[in-house]
Amino acid sequence: MVKVGIVGGTGYTGVELLRLLASHEEAEVVAITSRAESGRRLDDLYPNLRGIYDLAFSEPDVQALAACDVVFFATPHNVAMNLVPELLAAGARVVDLSADYRIRDADIWSDWYGEPHASPELLPEAVYGLPEVNRAQIADASLVACPGCYPTSVQLGFIPLLARGLVDPAHLIASSASGVSGAGRQAKVDNLLTEVADSFKAYGVAGHRHLPEIEQGLADVAGEPVAVTFVPHLLPMIRGIHSTLFARLKGEAGDLQALYEQWYADEPFVDVLPPGMLPQTRTVKGANRCQLAVALPQARDTVVVMAAIDNLVKGASGQAIQNMNIMLGLEESMGLRQVGLLP
Amino acid sequence: MVKVGIVGGTGYTGVELLRLLASHEEAEVVAITSRAESGRRLDDLYPNLRGIYDLAFSEPDVQALAACDVVFFATPHNVAMNLVPELLAAGARVVDLSADYRIRDADIWSDWYGEPHASPELLPEAVYGLPEVNRAQIADASLVACPGCYPTSVQLGFIPLLARGLVDPAHLIASSASGVSGAGRQAKVDNLLTEVADSFKAYGVAGHRHLPEIEQGLADVAGEPVAVTFVPHLLPMIRGIHSTLFARLKGEAGDLQALYEQWYADEPFVDVLPPGMLPQTRTVKGANRCQLAVALPQARDTVVVMAAIDNLVKGASGQAIQNMNIMLGLEESMGLRQVGLLP
Amino acid sequence: MVKVGIVGGTGYTGVELLRLLASHEEAEVVAITSRAESGRRLDDLYPNLRGIYDLAFSEPDVQALAACDVVFFATPHNVAMNLVPELLAAGARVVDLSADYRIRDADIWSDWYGEPHASPELLPEAVYGLPEVNRAQIADASLVACPGCYPTSVQLGFIPLLARGLVDPAHLIASSASGVSGAGRQAKVDNLLTEVADSFKAYGVAGHRHLPEIEQGLADVAGEPVAVTFVPHLLPMIRGIHSTLFARLKGEAGDLQALYEQWYADEPFVDVLPPGMLPQTRTVKGANRCQLAVALPQARDTVVVMAAIDNLVKGASGQAIQNMNIMLGLEESMGLRQVGLLP
Amino acid sequence: MVKVGIVGGTGYTGVELLRLLASHEEAEVVAITSRAESGRRLDDLYPNLRGIYDLAFSEPDVQALAACDVVFFATPHNVAMNLVPELLAAGARVVDLSADYRIRDADIWSDWYGEPHASPELLPEAVYGLPEVNRAQIADASLVACPGCYPTSVQLGFIPLLARGLVDPAHLIASSASGVSGAGRQAKVDNLLTEVADSFKAYGVAGHRHLPEIEQGLADVAGEPVAVTFVPHLLPMIRGIHSTLFARLKGEAGDLQALYEQWYADEPFVDVLPPGMLPQTRTVKGANRCQLAVALPQARDTVVVMAAIDNLVKGASGQAIQNMNIMLGLEESMGLRQVGLLP
Repeated sequence: MVKVGIVGGTGYTGVELLRLLASHEEAEVVAITSRAESGRRLDDLYPNLRGIYDLAFSEPDVQALAACDVVFFATPHNVAMNLVPELLAAGARVVDLSADYRIRDADIWSDWYGEPHASPELLPEAVYGLPEVNRAQIADASLVACPGCYPTSVQLGFIPLLARGLVDPAHLIASSASGVSGAGRQAKVDNLLTEVADSFKAYGVAGHRHLPEIEQGLADVAGEPVAVTFVPHLLPMIRGIHSTLFARLKGEAGDLQALYEQWYADEPFVDVLPPGMLPQTRTVKGANRCQLAVALPQARDTVVVMAAIDNLVKGASGQAIQNMNIMLGLEESMGLRQVGLLP
Repeated sequence: MVKVGIVGGTGYTGVELLRLLASHEEAEVVAITSRAESGRRLDDLYPNLRGIYDLAFSEPDVQALAACDVVFFATPHNVAMNLVPELLAAGARVVDLSADYRIRDADIWSDWYGEPHASPELLPEAVYGLPEVNRAQIADASLVACPGCYPTSVQLGFIPLLARGLVDPAHLIASSASGVSGAGRQAKVDNLLTEVADSFKAYGVAGHRHLPEIEQGLADVAGEPVAVTFVPHLLPMIRGIHSTLFARLKGEAGDLQALYEQWYADEPFVDVLPPGMLPQTRTVKGANRCQLAVALPQARDTVVVMAAIDNLVKGASGQAIQNMNIMLGLEESMGLRQVGLLP
Repeated sequence: MVKVGIVGGTGYTGVELLRLLASHEEAEVVAITSRAESGRRLDDLYPNLRGIYDLAFSEPDVQALAACDVVFFATPHNVAMNLVPELLAAGARVVDLSADYRIRDADIWSDWYGEPHASPELLPEAVYGLPEVNRAQIADASLVACPGCYPTSVQLGFIPLLARGLVDPAHLIASSASGVSGAGRQAKVDNLLTEVADSFKAYGVAGHRHLPEIEQGLADVAGEPVAVTFVPHLLPMIRGIHSTLFARLKGEAGDLQALYEQWYADEPFVDVLPPGMLPQTRTVKGANRCQLAVALPQARDTVVVMAAIDNLVKGASGQAIQNMNIMLGLEESMGLRQVGLLP
Repeated sequence: MVKVGIVGGTGYTGVELLRLLASHEEAEVVAITSRAESGRRLDDLYPNLRGIYDLAFSEPDVQALAACDVVFFATPHNVAMNLVPELLAAGARVVDLSADYRIRDADIWSDWYGEPHASPELLPEAVYGLPEVNRAQIADASLVACPGCYPTSVQLGFIPLLARGLVDPAHLIASSASGVSGAGRQAKVDNLLTEVADSFKAYGVAGHRHLPEIEQGLADVAGEPVAVTFVPHLLPMIRGIHSTLFARLKGEAGDLQALYEQWYADEPFVDVLPPGMLPQTRTVKGANRCQLAVALPQARDTVVVMAAIDNLVKGASGQAIQNMNIMLGLEESMGLRQVGLLP
């Protein structure tokens, strides 16, 4: 059995790791840390785990974590970058679900996060954990930076168009919408049910921290700089991200449906829907899956791509486990065979 | 008192007309028709109206309706176009909330609605009821075609940019999202709570019936043809439309905030939010108001406009009453002073 | 015009007072206080009020408040009881929406709120502001303690049965459910959308602070002690309270429908539904109305009463304005004619 | 592998059977019928099943079904009672999720369902499939009548009290609330999102079809007749049932917490929560689990029990699979180890 440690297990990506790992045949969670909840049983905080885990949160302890085969960071940014150097030195392998190692350029990271990076020396060896792009590098990595939720959906949607050079990379548009769980489990008036239920709004229009990550990833695929106008919105629901992507064709479209189907034909967790079917967040709820559709409305020159994921699964904890499986040479879908909860 | 008739009062725009007219100082509802519910009291179907109206639904009767000063059609398409000729001939004035008279070209109408238009001879005299564009013509009209919900939000958002010629009119993008009440009150599996709650999806990407209306209205303002890539989405909530609009600048942006504030300075029901504030559907819930914000993310060349309305008020029944007030020379905000229901 | 002051205007009962007073023909809000938001415009915090109020929050100032004809306290408990003595002494009349003056016995109050009462000398003169019971005393009161949201629904539902001595007063059961707005606008993890959306639970089963208020009010009506098993539940929505009440008949039921209809025949804001119709919170949303139904399932000996209100209106701010109108001799329904927002 | 057939697979209990059986190590779905959708692929109707099942709906065919080891009926009432006799005769074993065989007395069944029972001769051999009561009989049964969703929660909550004779069986009260999925997947205006979102109501107060089933099951446990006042409510959400139960003590309560913990100590799918923790529907979402809590508010004589289940899992399809496992001698939790989806 693979020994798994989780740092920062009280948030939603933490409990989601626990939910998914409960059905993983080869992984055992041996340590889960939380300064605030140290000593409290997991299932006292998360009663859905009663009878599943006989564990309590503990203080973060580098030695205990270093004894794990894989350590997940399910923390806000600015935690992992301080602890990971020591863990790597001790021989652990790390999957970081936070933003700390997603941006290769420490200056850009600092611009968006408002502080210096604590371990910039690790940025070159951190692998961006989007398996559909970097599977081989992930297999050999000691440190994987798991993509953000919005960036997962936006990149998977745009990749075939950009890789084939079909669209103008300088004027991409991503109109995305997320359930509130993307904001984490923190006491903020802005995320009270009374403030965000039964309503819809854009936010972060001036600049969202996922923008540089999106542009970095897409530029890699395009082989040239890209510019994305990225507008996230907040949905009155808990889980799910849906991105509607717009790009202008540079020439003939060709058979876009065939392009997408072929591009992702061998991907276990990317599902290109047949013509006429559009993604819904409810069909991927709880599942490690991205559903995609592509269209060319009115046969004009603007391609529209729609992508749906569960932000906590393919957008976070599921993708993290997918990365772990690849790193450890396990079957990639181990622990990730949950069917979407519909209705 | 103005005598008001309502054809097709059992749907959501019907009950919303009744809610709003209950506080209108000069209007009295004297007839409300429904074939299916004829004889049933209004407040039996809509208990929120108990004690407010002492009325029952009646069979549609042209003479009774013709005796009204204004007749609202709160019907699906394909009803008004058959009855309106007779009503106009009898001297009534009509505000049609359906799609029947929104498109000036009967062939285009037929292409999108799949049947011949029943009274194309009235199309030239029908006035498109967007007061922010056509206030003077509405005042003199006998037949006003009230705009669709999506088109109201999309047009109010794009108008200043197009009227000033600031953006490329051939590549506009509208990513809109609506509450489920926009689909009306019909027994369809697709709109069950179990099918659309707790989820989000795009629909009608290949072509939505509001597209020709949007392009017609915006072309009028632009003075040249426009092309819009319009993607509507379904929100897991009852009321509210939010449109996120994208347009590419042709040159310098100038002060977009000032442009919007000045453009709508005298409009009672268009509210340009101050910099840093973004529209939310909850702040206009139940109110006849469109809230707008404009931004130029990353100081690049793509303008983003956000518009929020209540689809049943400024997107339907409130706008219909606004049109009626203009037609009758009443104060434009009469019956329309409701404050948004927040939280 | 009546000059109105509001203490603690940043919470949901505060903004609801503002929404309702905007349509009140005789009242003008002249001061609204908040220590935390002093200097901030109302419509910056609550954009639904843009164009309605040209006011900013101010520091609480006794002199300014004392100059008002009526001062509303829309505060958590433990604020009013410290300020009210001074305001009354200065000649103001007060409607307290908090719990401070609802319980006549200062010891009982202390038991439930965990601190001594700061102005117990005012308890004898405070009038419990349930107009359906105390209309005459409210008219003469200087200090009205507005009932809690749950207690309003529970009392209005049980009153006819208890006043007529039809049921066992020692074993009443109230199974109530509230939208999340009842918990106020405070940063708590427990009320995040992610914690309470898409779920349902009981809470406060061991003892909820509204219990002594309910039992005090019902005992007054019954003329003997009553005991209520009160179980509140949390609904995954913003507004609305629904109480399902159970009581055992002592003898023959008689015509319960007629009893309820007659009991409330002259009440402007209590609506006994006809047989076969049951209350829904959506039909009273935004309205100052309690809808009631009574049933005797299977013709056995347990009466079931259902009561629905909007917790922020008839359960708080609407009832507060109703009290103000009675105190000032204004028409009782002034400012309270909003129709429920349906759908 | 066990060959499984499903009759009526297009409804929500059908898709839920498919979701759960996808992780069942010993079961294979070989036939799934639907007259309306015959020929359509499962994953076209339910895209969450893409890549999981390579099956299409077929016309009901007795021979094909009889070749299965177990046939589930996921149909409305009045289907199974016509087909089951033939299937049993052909040697199949049946788990009926509908109401057809739940009531032992055919006359009572007819009273509540408004038609004669089509196969009353099978009623004596049908076993009521509540494993916590009838595990041994289920093991030997050919025909299991799976309990209704409300009855599962109400019975599991009341059983320890009644079995021990602690409470008055003639005046039990059950105030239950269900998500909308309990109403099935049928085109009805009443269940549109616009009609039931953002609202709460009681329904069926005069008499709900689950009442005789509840009273029959509880009388068996009590060993004497019971009478339940049962009031179901509709929650604005998809999944979940919560029942709040009230019963009057006949004497001393004793240690109720210990009673419940001991009663269900060996039950894999009934979880008595520790003191101070109350059930929430969200903690059992997607899981085959009933969470229970018991309380004696104010140390008076009314016991309150709270029970939460997922109506589609422990209230329907999960319990059906639990029954199948028992019938076939498989491990009872096979295919039922899903962790609740939280948040």
